[in-house]
Amino acid sequence: MTSIERPPGDARPGPYRILHEAELRDYLAGLPDVADTLGGAPESWSISEVGDGNLNLVFIVKGTVGGMAVKQALPYVRLVGESWPLPLSRAHYEYLALTTHARLAPRLVPQILYHDEALALTAMELLSPHIIMRRGLIAGTIYPRFVEDITTFMARMLFFTSDLAITAAEKKEGVAAFAGNHALCKITEDLIFTDPYREAEQNRWTSPWLDRTAAAFREDMEAHVAISRLKLKFMSQPEALIHGDLHTGSIMVTESETRVIDPEFAFYGPMAFDIGAIIANLVMAYLASPGHERTSGDRRVFQAWLVETIEKVWTEFERKFLELWRTEARGDAYPTSLFVGSAGALHLEAERQRNMDQLFRDTVGFAAAKIIRRILGLAHNIDFEWIEDTRLRAVCEARSLRLARAMLTDAKSFTNIAAVTKMAREVNDWRPDFAA
Amino acid sequence: MTSIERPPGDARPGPYRILHEAELRDYLAGLPDVADTLGGAPESWSISEVGDGNLNLVFIVKGTVGGMAVKQALPYVRLVGESWPLPLSRAHYEYLALTTHARLAPRLVPQILYHDEALALTAMELLSPHIIMRRGLIAGTIYPRFVEDITTFMARMLFFTSDLAITAAEKKEGVAAFAGNHALCKITEDLIFTDPYREAEQNRWTSPWLDRTAAAFREDMEAHVAISRLKLKFMSQPEALIHGDLHTGSIMVTESETRVIDPEFAFYGPMAFDIGAIIANLVMAYLASPGHERTSGDRRVFQAWLVETIEKVWTEFERKFLELWRTEARGDAYPTSLFVGSAGALHLEAERQRNMDQLFRDTVGFAAAKIIRRILGLAHNIDFEWIEDTRLRAVCEARSLRLARAMLTDAKSFTNIAAVTKMAREVNDWRPDFAA
Repeated sequence: MTSIERPPGDARPGPYRILHEAELRDYLAGLPDVADTLGGAPESWSISEVGDGNLNLVFIVKGTVGGMAVKQALPYVRLVGESWPLPLSRAHYEYLALTTHARLAPRLVPQILYHDEALALTAMELLSPHIIMRRGLIAGTIYPRFVEDITTFMARMLFFTSDLAITAAEKKEGVAAFAGNHALCKITEDLIFTDPYREAEQNRWTSPWLDRTAAAFREDMEAHVAISRLKLKFMSQPEALIHGDLHTGSIMVTESETRVIDPEFAFYGPMAFDIGAIIANLVMAYLASPGHERTSGDRRVFQAWLVETIEKVWTEFERKFLELWRTEARGDAYPTSLFVGSAGALHLEAERQRNMDQLFRDTVGFAAAKIIRRILGLAHNIDFEWIEDTRLRAVCEARSLRLARAMLTDAKSFTNIAAVTKMAREVNDWRPDFAA
Repeated sequence: MTSIERPPGDARPGPYRILHEAELRDYLAGLPDVADTLGGAPESWSISEVGDGNLNLVFIVKGTVGGMAVKQALPYVRLVGESWPLPLSRAHYEYLALTTHARLAPRLVPQILYHDEALALTAMELLSPHIIMRRGLIAGTIYPRFVEDITTFMARMLFFTSDLAITAAEKKEGVAAFAGNHALCKITEDLIFTDPYREAEQNRWTSPWLDRTAAAFREDMEAHVAISRLKLKFMSQPEALIHGDLHTGSIMVTESETRVIDPEFAFYGPMAFDIGAIIANLVMAYLASPGHERTSGDRRVFQAWLVETIEKVWTEFERKFLELWRTEARGDAYPTSLFVGSAGALHLEAERQRNMDQLFRDTVGFAAAKIIRRILGLAHNIDFEWIEDTRLRAVCEARSLRLARAMLTDAKSFTNIAAVTKMAREVNDWRPDFAA
């Protein structure tokens, strides 16, 4: 397996072309290792386009021996079309992130089979029978491995790319290597940290029920200050290599396995953005679940599991991250030579806890931002969208916004994760008054 | 005038060679524009090496028409020798920073005449009769223009390279452009943020007077926590393009002009590092001044000017930076569309003030770090070194350390710059007890 080296953002007219089914078949047939992995005659391979994301083409290819997923970036946002161009270089950054993840958490990402820089194309392990976690959560499925896997993934990915684990020189090289991915960062900056709080053509919400709430967010200066602080943190605090889009649609699961996919938004940013994304999406799954009941109360066990999962995502992440910090801290931050003896150990441990407390506050804020954008911004999620009764959907969304506003503007009052789940349970019993 | 384009850190064997007087004469004679600027026959040019810094060769070249300063980076630390290699690429970053400064504050940096990337050489305007500000301060000279100029320089340099003034994409490109300067950052990380707080071969201090104090700093866990927080901020908060070595030895002055030189430590880092450097060096000039009295009290007017200058460096910087933020904020941070109307204006102004308060706290901390490293670390400054009576020198240094320790470990208690100058005046009357 080889990869064609081509600098990101290279503007030379290159061999990039969109591969539809027929071209893809020829292309893969021309790669001996790939063809061997698939097995059988190329004309016998089944190829189907399954991309349900917003940006790329994704093909499932199956031969007589094996299968693979092939992802190709399009030079525009698929959801919108050619009017919204987006650089192909994102495939380069995704590949760079995937190889980093494979090194740090090999069992928790798909195996890369082939990468073509010029075509912005990556072939990877076919995950089967894994499904997108968001779909499983909508169906009310419990994933017993999830907490263990996602907290290992986040703790290792974030710790080992931070100043706690690597030298300042390595860190700067990493930051520079992902700096070119700014078009993807800009999507986040606009769609998460700006548009939901102002008039923007692309915004939408469950109307008319949420009209008043959406208007209130546009006038809410406390919220605007809080979201702007988070935006600045997102733009200017490269703490670690973050996934950048770590919602439950970027995770594939079975009851015994977890795989994190699609890190094309990866760059060096604030750790809490990823942790907050996980927590936000679990909170939304929880608050959307009354909309997916078939009989009243039939999601009670699932909801209890979600509450426990939300809590453990933070507590297990914190435990694992602290454990890594205590045992694997070879970076330039907090040099061990300054913390010798029992007094040193004591002070460093207190400082670790202080860092985790700050990280938790940031996590609460970013989680809030991720919830609000899914209800008032451009990209919604099927947790809510698939609730057919729009009034009931609006009720679930209004509850989520009530929680998120508190988390956004008063993150400090959530002193631990139990305070978040406590308020989530409380808002879940709240009946919003939609009268004008 | 041309510049030879060559990527920084390029490892190909290149035409780099150290230019001593004879080679430099031939080299400059071969550059028509440079030769014209100097005027007369090359053999008539006077060339003298004047570098009193720690890293480079600096020549003053004078012809019949004009003169220039020529700076060439050596592939090692001049102060130490070939055993401490240092990349030539620092000349690239210095040139990059100088051109940025020339754009943002043209009257406040030397004019660049020629840059040779391969030779790591830059020819610039000969500043005459300017002297290194530190020497002027030791002589007790008052510089009436200094506050106005340095605060303009810092406010414009820091504001216009921050997320307040530029897009997130431009910011990321800037961060990446300077990421390769990590060897220079590492010097700061070691010599300022680490070594003075531990046993390190290169440390020195005025012995025996400060032996006990130096030992106390090595045991002082509160100080170690505080310095480590600042180190992490230095490594991971690229707020703006900072000069990185903005002490009074990097400033050339007359009574009516100010020029900032030598930005070879430039990179995207915390703004407060530069502001703190200026304040620290003025504080040291103040606390060293009793050591330079010829008759008791003959520095009283000078000291009063210094106290006023320290205060105004902050207050004028803050005023100018806020003014730029109010009028020139075209960056992606704090988007104006989120702060419309009188409520928006009110909240944004409060947020600006909150940002300045945080910046001030960081400034107090970084200033403390810059003082401590000059007394307990490798690189001392002549403000103290030129006090011949070593006991008196130690008294001045002990006072500075007393102030700096409070600023380092309790930055929050300095609620404004007057609190810093108040304690500076108080410690200036303190008589340290050097008994064991």
